[in-house]
Amino acid sequence: MEKLILITNDDGVGAVGIKLLTELAKEFGRVVVVAPDGARSGQSNAITVELPIYCQKLHEEPNLDIFACSGTPTDCVKLALNKILDREPDLILSGINHGSNSSINVLYSGTMGAVFEGCIQGISSVGFSFCSDNKAIDFTFCLPYFRTIIEKVLNEPLKKGICLNVNAPLGKIKGIKVCCQGSGVWTEEFDERNKPDGKRYFWLTGSFVSKSEDDIRSDEWAHKNGFISIVPQRIDLTDYEAFDQLKNSGYETL
Amino acid sequence: MEKLILITNDDGVGAVGIKLLTELAKEFGRVVVVAPDGARSGQSNAITVELPIYCQKLHEEPNLDIFACSGTPTDCVKLALNKILDREPDLILSGINHGSNSSINVLYSGTMGAVFEGCIQGISSVGFSFCSDNKAIDFTFCLPYFRTIIEKVLNEPLKKGICLNVNAPLGKIKGIKVCCQGSGVWTEEFDERNKPDGKRYFWLTGSFVSKSEDDIRSDEWAHKNGFISIVPQRIDLTDYEAFDQLKNSGYETL
Repeated sequence: MEKLILITNDDGVGAVGIKLLTELAKEFGRVVVVAPDGARSGQSNAITVELPIYCQKLHEEPNLDIFACSGTPTDCVKLALNKILDREPDLILSGINHGSNSSINVLYSGTMGAVFEGCIQGISSVGFSFCSDNKAIDFTFCLPYFRTIIEKVLNEPLKKGICLNVNAPLGKIKGIKVCCQGSGVWTEEFDERNKPDGKRYFWLTGSFVSKSEDDIRSDEWAHKNGFISIVPQRIDLTDYEAFDQLKNSGYETL
Repeated sequence: MEKLILITNDDGVGAVGIKLLTELAKEFGRVVVVAPDGARSGQSNAITVELPIYCQKLHEEPNLDIFACSGTPTDCVKLALNKILDREPDLILSGINHGSNSSINVLYSGTMGAVFEGCIQGISSVGFSFCSDNKAIDFTFCLPYFRTIIEKVLNEPLKKGICLNVNAPLGKIKGIKVCCQGSGVWTEEFDERNKPDGKRYFWLTGSFVSKSEDDIRSDEWAHKNGFISIVPQRIDLTDYEAFDQLKNSGYETL
């Protein structure tokens, strides 16, 4: 049977990255794009519960339908699976994101939120990101690597509960490495301003500080050394190693 | 030195749950509440990047300040740490949420999003939830158990990278159990309607289907059997066990 691939992102349906990913996915089967109608960066696994969700078809051609949705990336996946697709897709792809979703950024990422949603639903899901926010950079050089990954996942679906977070660095690519999620933190700098009426407001800004560029198993190390990273990520966030610490603190465990 | 406790939630600064948690935390030191100005359910780890963030002080008394913030629970933690608190807090508490954040719901939860943010920042962080959406239920009976947990964490900070997800079931409590995150899925039912002008929209609805009530290590089992669950959750979402599968698929690993 022809493969069915669902695509979404968090940069919005008009972004360059999702267009490249759509063209790539069309090589493998029928593609349905259900993506936010504008930017939804930093939306994590957020769902829309306080507002109505709109969805409209923007485009159709043989083997490709494109829908724009007013919700979050996670909403897009839920809506696609429940209201748009006629069967469960073989694969969910998210991206290609403009900006890194490696290290701790996976927790804030709307791109990866959609991927986690696919994973919760038991569908093989992969997020693709490019580690630069510079919209002017042509990142078609990543596509052959991403093609390989898509092909592999279609041939051998991912284990339940696991999804892939793929990030490509800037510059010459030496290959692909499976690695672990790096550690890091955002040093926030809230930009404080006043409205014309004097009311104070803030813009969230700041910069990411990697703490794992020297950790030779991490995605940050991979990027620094010219490799595309694949981090297998899980939706079971239990820390099983913490059970012992908690037992020592006097808790009973199941 | 006097303990400093930061409190937030996702039901909004006016919710009953955060008032109960604030009263409880005051027993242990100085409390600063920075919480959303309204409901932010299902906001996960979302951050606000496309809109300005407002924040205003609602109340002050000795050892207690309360602020309302226009952002997400994660924004509240970031803003508190960067713009409001005069030092790093000893503890971050989130909740008490009206509604379960156990099992897979931890991924969508704004309550737990704030807790993960605290954990990323290296601060001991705990989320408290009550497994019923019924606002009429008096859940003060949970407070003695939550008091014990707060006291323990203040005495013995959590290991870096780990935070706690505490959920209390309805009914008579038999005790507290440390357990693992259950599995489950939401069966979405989008409620489809038309605006007066005919434009179609959807409300996200549906019901949670637990797949782990019979798994005797899971939070869902704990609740079914009258126990408050504590799941130690991690911010490193790497699935280390998947490395082998990926190696077998022909990938190189770091």
